[in-house]
Amino acid sequence: MRKVVLAKRPNIDPRPDDFEIVDAGMPEPKDGQLLVKVLWQSIDPYVRLTFDDPTIAGAPGMALGEMPLGRAVSQVVTSRHPDFAAGDIIEGRTHWGEYAVVDPAVRPTKLDFGEIPLSYAVGALGMPGQTAYAGVDKVLNVQAGQTMLVSAAAGAVGTLAGQIAKHRGARVVGIAGGPDKCAEVEKLGFDACVDYKAADFSDRLAAALPGGFNAYFENVGGDMSRIAFQNASYGAKVALCGVLSVYAVGNETGPDRLPEVMRLLFTKGLTIQSFFGELLGGADATVAMRKLIEAGAITPRESIIEGIENLPAAFSGIFRGNDHVGKVVLHIADPD
Amino acid sequence: MRKVVLAKRPNIDPRPDDFEIVDAGMPEPKDGQLLVKVLWQSIDPYVRLTFDDPTIAGAPGMALGEMPLGRAVSQVVTSRHPDFAAGDIIEGRTHWGEYAVVDPAVRPTKLDFGEIPLSYAVGALGMPGQTAYAGVDKVLNVQAGQTMLVSAAAGAVGTLAGQIAKHRGARVVGIAGGPDKCAEVEKLGFDACVDYKAADFSDRLAAALPGGFNAYFENVGGDMSRIAFQNASYGAKVALCGVLSVYAVGNETGPDRLPEVMRLLFTKGLTIQSFFGELLGGADATVAMRKLIEAGAITPRESIIEGIENLPAAFSGIFRGNDHVGKVVLHIADPD
Repeated sequence: MRKVVLAKRPNIDPRPDDFEIVDAGMPEPKDGQLLVKVLWQSIDPYVRLTFDDPTIAGAPGMALGEMPLGRAVSQVVTSRHPDFAAGDIIEGRTHWGEYAVVDPAVRPTKLDFGEIPLSYAVGALGMPGQTAYAGVDKVLNVQAGQTMLVSAAAGAVGTLAGQIAKHRGARVVGIAGGPDKCAEVEKLGFDACVDYKAADFSDRLAAALPGGFNAYFENVGGDMSRIAFQNASYGAKVALCGVLSVYAVGNETGPDRLPEVMRLLFTKGLTIQSFFGELLGGADATVAMRKLIEAGAITPRESIIEGIENLPAAFSGIFRGNDHVGKVVLHIADPD
Repeated sequence: MRKVVLAKRPNIDPRPDDFEIVDAGMPEPKDGQLLVKVLWQSIDPYVRLTFDDPTIAGAPGMALGEMPLGRAVSQVVTSRHPDFAAGDIIEGRTHWGEYAVVDPAVRPTKLDFGEIPLSYAVGALGMPGQTAYAGVDKVLNVQAGQTMLVSAAAGAVGTLAGQIAKHRGARVVGIAGGPDKCAEVEKLGFDACVDYKAADFSDRLAAALPGGFNAYFENVGGDMSRIAFQNASYGAKVALCGVLSVYAVGNETGPDRLPEVMRLLFTKGLTIQSFFGELLGGADATVAMRKLIEAGAITPRESIIEGIENLPAAFSGIFRGNDHVGKVVLHIADPD
């Protein structure tokens, strides 16, 4: 079987050659563990946080030559745990490989999806969906008549967050990279989408937000935040869902943008809340998302990439504003 | 009578020669207005926000040659309003001068202070007290057993916020400039005070916060925030009360500190809330503060400066980490 290992530590944003595809023997499950075949591997930017040593949170980084850990949909091949049987389809954290050993301590869940695509378990009905729902509902509490801004609007979480807010009656403005991506975002029902690659991005954003925003679903961080905050209406809320632009150290070239951001936070009476969708939304959010999807109120978008050999490029691409729209998932195998 | 006018717009932080003392005729109250003699003029950093044109909030700045507007305790000389009589002592917004015209649209309040010093009306029983109380109570909701960090701990708001949190059973760590100020802060009951002028400030702060802080009462902004946030415990709250270090544009020399701050906010699950004590705490906060003071649970500290001719130096001094401890008030006259 093939696995993907971290070959060297990325210089700021990851590149495909930071990883290596390695042929390996089949892993062996111990008592209480499962051997699974990976069907759908989730491609999530936060995994980048484990690649420095120490990490920016001060923890030891993962070892070189080891497999990164991500979320995936898998099928049980061999079960050495009484709650799971060969053939079960599960969602849970697994290492990047065609096969993996799963310890039930990471609490994999058995899937019963009916007609719903299995890949949604790592997208609209998984962590990105919980995150989008928790951000719009619990953190921002978006109401009809308000205006919500979303950065990385074409991404896994942004496409969902915008649709949830639209369904609640808000006006929704997205930020995405390039006219094609913006067109795709507007097709999902966003009222407007502003291209951050445009030379006059700042003016365009102000024009799209004539009354300012009440809520901002922030996935990018750094200078994008600074420009966005200029368009906050007084007392607006910011849900800090991710910092895609600054997951790694190395984006610190001056001028110092911190003073302006602190002034904007203060004078505009803003509240920023960092949150993790799994902690805040959890299973309730997934139930709510499933209802919205089954009612046709939300259309999950996916960009499907085929084959484990493309995992390094798929992962690196997220940090480079590639042309993927929606949740990026890697299809590795089909269930037996 | 003498008044203080803005002579030129400050280059970043105000200097005494940005102002001019001018002899002027007695102002004339119109129908519905009051002529007052100013007794105690409050010296508040936020007044700086009105000195640029446009202001950082995008509003027109005040005109050169005009008097800044601040809070003061005054005595009514001539009343042309049925709710006020000559001799009344009031607190409200007035222009910087020995005498001023007050329009009741700014809602001055009559004071009935008994034995309590009148100057407290612009300190512990005024806006700084409301701000300290609202920040500790409503924004941070500090509980017994928690650790609260306070920047500008020797300032008008910081000295009060720390004492309120101590009274609630928290461990309180202050940040102030210089060993003398830190000693004064510790005399007020703070568990520790860290000197930000020390070369090893960052290490000292970490040593004073072995378990991190749960709550941070932030008055300074900019790089102080960055160093403080490094010591947050997971899920901590930050009350953004002011940005003393960056009220003006011009503190933007690199490196860019924004990426690190965004990463810290995200990975430590922080919430920052900008707030204005008058809006959040209001009259209830003043009632609560009066009880704490009358019970001896809080000791307001003041630095009293004499004479309107010293107003420019007193105001400018706030931005330069002078040796004042507590609320800086300017004593101009005594009541008749």
